[in-house]
Amino acid sequence: MDQSDELITIKAIGHVRSRFDSYAPSDEMQAHPSEIVVHADFVDGLMGLEAGGQILTLFLLHRAMAVGYELQLHPGHNPDNPIRGVFSTRSQYRPNFIAATVARIQSIRHDEATGEAVLNVTELDAQDGSPVIDIKPYRASLDTPAS
Amino acid sequence: MDQSDELITIKAIGHVRSRFDSYAPSDEMQAHPSEIVVHADFVDGLMGLEAGGQILTLFLLHRAMAVGYELQLHPGHNPDNPIRGVFSTRSQYRPNFIAATVARIQSIRHDEATGEAVLNVTELDAQDGSPVIDIKPYRASLDTPAS
Repeated sequence: MDQSDELITIKAIGHVRSRFDSYAPSDEMQAHPSEIVVHADFVDGLMGLEAGGQILTLFLLHRAMAVGYELQLHPGHNPDNPIRGVFSTRSQYRPNFIAATVARIQSIRHDEATGEAVLNVTELDAQDGSPVIDIKPYRASLDTPAS
Repeated sequence: MDQSDELITIKAIGHVRSRFDSYAPSDEMQAHPSEIVVHADFVDGLMGLEAGGQILTLFLLHRAMAVGYELQLHPGHNPDNPIRGVFSTRSQYRPNFIAATVARIQSIRHDEATGEAVLNVTELDAQDGSPVIDIKPYRASLDTPAS
């Protein structure tokens, strides 16, 4: 099997509500709270998550997806920065357009009308409408380099 | 648009070579070196990665994918552990079957015959043959909780 030709299908488990609907630096987005809306079909998977918990959030860079990716680029779109491979940057314009950021849950509420759950979070750097594809509890042994 | 119904297609940029071809605890897998083989089409994206660098590696839990996911489960498949939601665990049996682990590059070599690049890494917990879907430089502001 030539795995480079294999296509895999994934689906959103939720989406982000944020005040940012266009590009902003990560640290600016992380300074503002945002929300992760978990779709009704996946709410049962949240059992055990609590306010104060730290979550590795995987989401899609959906606006970049509409543009396409580049294997080599000037970081920060600044031609003064020497060209680098996309895998040595956190550029949005990457194959598969998946972002990973650790956020902190401030509160969780359930919307009885829609069946959705809404996680109020801080430290997330996702634009409004970003499809969320996974939530994992932060675990230092997997998410932090060994020293 | 109902994003829960939206399907997104992703593709492998490479695959893992590991001595583990069936389930083993993460810490056991992390104790052994493994390799990330980057397919020729994506090798240009590696420019700037170097030995010693720490990379957040996204890969597919391809063996779990063949089984299916569960929204609630006994962690560690141990019925003595109370049931939890999958998003509060690092279970393999999760929607989208994507794993995220920070590894360290020990060396990088290029295979002139195939055009592939091979990253020798430590601290990765991927089974043999796992499709790799992204490599990102570790960045504490995104990958570590604010204290």
